[in-house]
Amino acid sequence: MTGPRGFEHAEFETRTARAQDRMGQAGLAGLLLTTEAEIRYFTGFHTLFWQSPTRPWFVFVPRDGKPVAVIPQIGLDLMQRTWIDDIRCWMAPDPADDGITLLHDLLAPLARAGQVIGLPKGPETHLRMPLADYERLMAGLTGLQVVDATDLIRALRMVKSEAEITKIAHICAIAGRSFDLLPGFARAGAPLDEVFRSFRRAALGQGADDVPYLVGGADRGGYRDVISPPSARPLAAGDVLMLDTGACWDGYFCDFDRNFAVGPPDDATLRAHDTLWRATEAGLAAARPGATCRDLFQAMHSVIADRADQPGDVGRLGHGLGMQLTEWPSLAPWDDTVITENMVLTLEPSLGYGAGRIMVHEENIVIRADGPELLSPRAPRDLPVI
Amino acid sequence: MTGPRGFEHAEFETRTARAQDRMGQAGLAGLLLTTEAEIRYFTGFHTLFWQSPTRPWFVFVPRDGKPVAVIPQIGLDLMQRTWIDDIRCWMAPDPADDGITLLHDLLAPLARAGQVIGLPKGPETHLRMPLADYERLMAGLTGLQVVDATDLIRALRMVKSEAEITKIAHICAIAGRSFDLLPGFARAGAPLDEVFRSFRRAALGQGADDVPYLVGGADRGGYRDVISPPSARPLAAGDVLMLDTGACWDGYFCDFDRNFAVGPPDDATLRAHDTLWRATEAGLAAARPGATCRDLFQAMHSVIADRADQPGDVGRLGHGLGMQLTEWPSLAPWDDTVITENMVLTLEPSLGYGAGRIMVHEENIVIRADGPELLSPRAPRDLPVI
Repeated sequence: MTGPRGFEHAEFETRTARAQDRMGQAGLAGLLLTTEAEIRYFTGFHTLFWQSPTRPWFVFVPRDGKPVAVIPQIGLDLMQRTWIDDIRCWMAPDPADDGITLLHDLLAPLARAGQVIGLPKGPETHLRMPLADYERLMAGLTGLQVVDATDLIRALRMVKSEAEITKIAHICAIAGRSFDLLPGFARAGAPLDEVFRSFRRAALGQGADDVPYLVGGADRGGYRDVISPPSARPLAAGDVLMLDTGACWDGYFCDFDRNFAVGPPDDATLRAHDTLWRATEAGLAAARPGATCRDLFQAMHSVIADRADQPGDVGRLGHGLGMQLTEWPSLAPWDDTVITENMVLTLEPSLGYGAGRIMVHEENIVIRADGPELLSPRAPRDLPVI
Repeated sequence: MTGPRGFEHAEFETRTARAQDRMGQAGLAGLLLTTEAEIRYFTGFHTLFWQSPTRPWFVFVPRDGKPVAVIPQIGLDLMQRTWIDDIRCWMAPDPADDGITLLHDLLAPLARAGQVIGLPKGPETHLRMPLADYERLMAGLTGLQVVDATDLIRALRMVKSEAEITKIAHICAIAGRSFDLLPGFARAGAPLDEVFRSFRRAALGQGADDVPYLVGGADRGGYRDVISPPSARPLAAGDVLMLDTGACWDGYFCDFDRNFAVGPPDDATLRAHDTLWRATEAGLAAARPGATCRDLFQAMHSVIADRADQPGDVGRLGHGLGMQLTEWPSLAPWDDTVITENMVLTLEPSLGYGAGRIMVHEENIVIRADGPELLSPRAPRDLPVI
């Protein structure tokens, strides 16, 4: 079930070949990548060292052949263990030249030939290098055209391999077992920050590598925000508690939440939970190849609109999931991406109720030929009471 | 000792006033910020939601008055609890307009007046928004000059307040107690990935909010790289084990490591440990207000150069520490930053020995008027044997 850590080299060969096919269609001579997920996607380079903002890292995927790494010397040993052969290093940090000369030398022949390269510049991307360095690099590469490669990367990363799906399923199962343990430590009187800490320890105990994302809330009759760090307020009878976790294993995330009532919940809370459970069912029924993200949004939204006083205001009702906690696509009215087999998605309906109370549900699924397969254990039909 | 979570509003008022003083000197009408640390520094907005790359967040610090937040609707409730009054939201994600119209409206008067704003564009910074959105925003703001504000932000953030130092000291103490517990779970036969997991659980048990950074290595006679994820290889007699942790509490990091021998170490390992312990002592002796980062580097490097066969190749021998695992300045030959009171730094000497073995030491200090104060408990004089 777990599968080994890492990937066979064939995984990276396939990813690169698919990128190169699309580069051919788009007339691109290469892709310049600066972000953790993209560099790991094409090379397998996996390290927490990205936590340090000090050093930039670069990978160039040429139209033919293997990716080329342009990286700080400190990463040489680890990059040599990937399938990459061409690794160019400098002694970083070096504010006077943090890889810019190496990048210039790599790209100058393309600039002289007036070629076009792709760089992710669109939604959900950013350039992870000093902007002044980027401007300096480009100023020295007259003739090089740089176009947005977001759609190319997005199309590849949205559809997961079986090896990727196995990792996501594994961390979803770990988080599911961790939620099962929650009633043991989330009792009335327990401070919320201690509940968070205990959940992290439980998830590590169940086999998670880390729990980079853990948010939630607890408040009398219902929580009011879903992105705050926890307070030290003790759980009390009458609270509704929600924990939403992005735990990871071997570089892949789960992202789902669970709601609990501390003591008997009020009717409005029960109704909110019931509405979101039904909305999720509607999302599951709609999650088939050929549907669009908009269709999934509408399926969930129509249940909420029929039954709830207030829609939620999180901007969408689910999203992609994989190497990052949130990835393309978005289950939103503006996203007409067609759902295809092996996309991994979250279904995340939400609503408002009462005076400022909100409720969110979330499940993780993979799209199969005949419909969705749940990766997270389905939340219980009735709101669990602690 | 711990101090409360968060900061008094006066902390943010002081930070903003200092930034505005420097903006006045530099002729800047404002600062545009897009990154987690900078936005938290000026507003107190603190959330793990940054783990999601989907939504951009913006803060503009004007020449006079409080910072202005331009943020996704999902962050409104949390931002309203900060000292900020002017909060402008949109329903993100919205690929057609992810805050760009709001930013345009905010900055257009400055553009019409031909004013200059600052944006961090230099070393250790990046622009956390889609590059295409930035280019579109700037194309619509003819007349606005954007200059690099890295030095301004760097000068402020390098020097910590007592409230910040208290938080860093607290997490350093937590990590120190966690290292004390390590011999209880890092025994011969324990797989390295289980040792990592146990360390994380220990740190959470000691009060850490999270352990976002944990790297290290263990290998026969000495480890060979310091940025890899752990393997499942069991610890064995003759190994040298190193763990390097960036744990955090209330948004502030520690960053230090500890070395252990599994069973009696060989002479080369003992000598390496002794050299790095002496190099750290030399760094401590040099760490006084008025010295430069280059001086600290030289103090440590000269010990290593005298006694070790091979210098390390990590590019520097320490760095700043605070809201991020690594911050300016760098203890490196090219960094002539003058050390001042209340800078928090790591001393991180390293060397190579034998065939590809490396060793690193790291301590965390705050600079006081009369010299350094250790925030991490000083590593033992002799390499501890498990």
